[in-house]
Amino acid sequence: MNKERFNRVTDELIRSLQEVVGNANVLTEKFDLEPYSHDETEDFVFYPEVTVKPVSTAEVSEILKLCNEHTIPVTTRGGGTGLSGGALPVYGGVILSTERMNKIIEIDRENFMATVQPGLITYALHQAVEAEGLFYPVDPASKESCTIGGNVAECAGGPRAVKYGVTRDYVFGLTCVLADGQIFKTGGKLLKNVTGYNLTQLIVGSEGTLCVVTEIILKLIPLTQHKRTMLAPFDSLSDAAKALTDIFNSKIVPRAAEFIEQRAIKAAEEKLGKPFPHSDRAALLLFEIDGNRADLLDEQAENIGEICLAHNAVDVFVADSKEKQEELWQMRRNIGEAVKSIAIYKEEDTVVPRSRLPELVEKIASISKKYGILTISYGHAGDGNIHVNIIKKDISDSDWDNKLPHVIEELFREVVILGGSISGEHGIGWVQKNYLPLALSHVEIELIRKIKEVFDPKGILNPGKIFPDS
Amino acid sequence: MNKERFNRVTDELIRSLQEVVGNANVLTEKFDLEPYSHDETEDFVFYPEVTVKPVSTAEVSEILKLCNEHTIPVTTRGGGTGLSGGALPVYGGVILSTERMNKIIEIDRENFMATVQPGLITYALHQAVEAEGLFYPVDPASKESCTIGGNVAECAGGPRAVKYGVTRDYVFGLTCVLADGQIFKTGGKLLKNVTGYNLTQLIVGSEGTLCVVTEIILKLIPLTQHKRTMLAPFDSLSDAAKALTDIFNSKIVPRAAEFIEQRAIKAAEEKLGKPFPHSDRAALLLFEIDGNRADLLDEQAENIGEICLAHNAVDVFVADSKEKQEELWQMRRNIGEAVKSIAIYKEEDTVVPRSRLPELVEKIASISKKYGILTISYGHAGDGNIHVNIIKKDISDSDWDNKLPHVIEELFREVVILGGSISGEHGIGWVQKNYLPLALSHVEIELIRKIKEVFDPKGILNPGKIFPDS
Repeated sequence: MNKERFNRVTDELIRSLQEVVGNANVLTEKFDLEPYSHDETEDFVFYPEVTVKPVSTAEVSEILKLCNEHTIPVTTRGGGTGLSGGALPVYGGVILSTERMNKIIEIDRENFMATVQPGLITYALHQAVEAEGLFYPVDPASKESCTIGGNVAECAGGPRAVKYGVTRDYVFGLTCVLADGQIFKTGGKLLKNVTGYNLTQLIVGSEGTLCVVTEIILKLIPLTQHKRTMLAPFDSLSDAAKALTDIFNSKIVPRAAEFIEQRAIKAAEEKLGKPFPHSDRAALLLFEIDGNRADLLDEQAENIGEICLAHNAVDVFVADSKEKQEELWQMRRNIGEAVKSIAIYKEEDTVVPRSRLPELVEKIASISKKYGILTISYGHAGDGNIHVNIIKKDISDSDWDNKLPHVIEELFREVVILGGSISGEHGIGWVQKNYLPLALSHVEIELIRKIKEVFDPKGILNPGKIFPDS
Repeated sequence: MNKERFNRVTDELIRSLQEVVGNANVLTEKFDLEPYSHDETEDFVFYPEVTVKPVSTAEVSEILKLCNEHTIPVTTRGGGTGLSGGALPVYGGVILSTERMNKIIEIDRENFMATVQPGLITYALHQAVEAEGLFYPVDPASKESCTIGGNVAECAGGPRAVKYGVTRDYVFGLTCVLADGQIFKTGGKLLKNVTGYNLTQLIVGSEGTLCVVTEIILKLIPLTQHKRTMLAPFDSLSDAAKALTDIFNSKIVPRAAEFIEQRAIKAAEEKLGKPFPHSDRAALLLFEIDGNRADLLDEQAENIGEICLAHNAVDVFVADSKEKQEELWQMRRNIGEAVKSIAIYKEEDTVVPRSRLPELVEKIASISKKYGILTISYGHAGDGNIHVNIIKKDISDSDWDNKLPHVIEELFREVVILGGSISGEHGIGWVQKNYLPLALSHVEIELIRKIKEVFDPKGILNPGKIFPDS
């Protein structure tokens, strides 16, 4: 796949797009295109030639028909909060922004299902369903600005996945548009369904490369009534990892089990401009448990606390008020941006079987030491999903350029040896694609490449993503 | 796809297969082939030309290489308990039986994952993991004879799906062999993973048409400590349906919520040769709730009971001993076979959004009346998944032959109008394939047809299944 395959957007095409969505919803000026030229992935900038803002499945279909006919790349964009470059229009062409398709079409209280448009902000869904006593558990750190469509494209996770699963576990039906403009629906409000292959789940996590999703049916669950958030600081990373293992072995499933390295806490403290308890300790574990009986939760919180103390936790702090809980989570959600503000960085979204986490933490430390390069790790320990930030601090440009590819490759090789993979929840996108052969075999890559051709024979949908350069 | 495309099994091929798996594991005598000529689907009989019993992924690969080279159909078979004809070798050729690949490779207590071979009996997995305090919730009625591989192929469900989901929700990794013998792995012991398309979930429910699965990684969850099983008889189907809706609206999620029509209970009584409480009532609801606190369960049981009584339940019976619980479930599991022993039958595996169940029940009654044909319904009300048995009783052969296709088509059309689909958990297989266009659009059928070609270009894997005759 290379840039030369594609045509440039012509004035005639722009006029046709204006006829489909109206003049106000076709942007072509550089100033207007700037917000669409980057996402949250490092410092990449790629300008689209035009941004189009449809409002319906029918408009999306018309746009795709035009682009497919003229072989123009189309990159679908939700909130632009992605961390793998999924929304970057790396070959120019059209940005198809879902920002106007942001409605909750229905909250079906009897079937515990919501039907939404892809541009809906994730947090807006949380608020709407929680007002009905229902719960949509998936909560990426970017929940206040990311969209459900983007979450579906990347199969977003977040802290609560350890108990409640990831986006795929909640997607039960889709309305989609193929590259050639054909519309189709998958699934429905059905808890069981084995009618043909599971296209719904093939499309979730396909990073906008198979089709454009224009409507999503999501399962909801009853909202639990109580929660407790807990913080346990440790002087040793390995003690923290062992405490975590013992908590799961005791058959408690917290709804979040986060791991935060000291350097990450310090960065968040600095960004938020306020001190954080125990920020001088080697590592923090942040737990959240939930349920419908306060007494049962208190019992679980006590068990978790005892296990942490048995593994030399310095303290165990239980946040039982909403304010204190929110304070802890605000810190946690700010870590990503805080760490990134230190210097030029590269973030890797490693995932291993939960029990291998202590080994992963050791490997990261030894690679860091070997190359003399700073790393800061934090993430969803309960899932084995650790975000490793490699930071360009105190080293020269040439050292960075020379070392970085080796650091990443060595890290990914270790992850695969531990039974893990190179992306837990951010996607492969633009930044990891050339590492894909470290995680997937030649057979698997060929299968997904051919599936891509079935859906999008001309390769116009989000080109330059997932598949390694040949 | 037609029979003429395939070659017959030659003596030379049989010798080659014997070299792969040993003479004792290649069956060619009619007497030996008889058990492989049918599954539990109506009275269909199709003999394979040969049955092969490999013991490893490597042997499966060798078998497929040979069959692909000679264009011989290969139908993979687990326990042979399927209800859509998935294991029927309708074009002859090879039955690849997984019966010798029946090991639990590992129960990973730290990561809550089991790795198993496809021929493992589902109930054997239940027993092994429950002994470790872990739980694999999927429990088809045939659990004592069906296999995990068959469950994966059909995406099996069962009563507990309403709370715990279906097979797909527990499959996290696969080892597979393509038609041409190439081996590949998907996923892993990873709770999060977005590395390439989700081939794992594409393969689950693909009914043996994409590849042969030789190893399966399954998620386990902590075993809950207590359960209560409840039976509520009703004099009116519509009262029963309304009670069910109210229970879910009260935010209780039972782990099972079964609906059984009077005629189904009577049939089970007859088969088991013992009376069943309240078998003279119009319908029974059977509930099961589970949790780790007995007092909380008792409270929930009381709530469920009150809701049932408010909707005119005749009685509410709580089975709190293991023996009483097992007695209720034994009756429930025997209904399928009991109903089928009445006369020639056709079973449809309808599924609708749960709230549409009362309408489905009414539609079934009106179709039954319109055609003067007996139907008996029962199933997983909590999922909206109702098994409708159309029974040839007291009508002539020609009446049956004339009416049956109309009855089925009318039923399926109503199901689709209600937002449902034509198979909840049995699969499309051989018996529903020509109804597929009622549920899926032309676009969707074309997509899955082309995906099939990507995996199996010569179409040797389980031919004659899923796809409508063209």
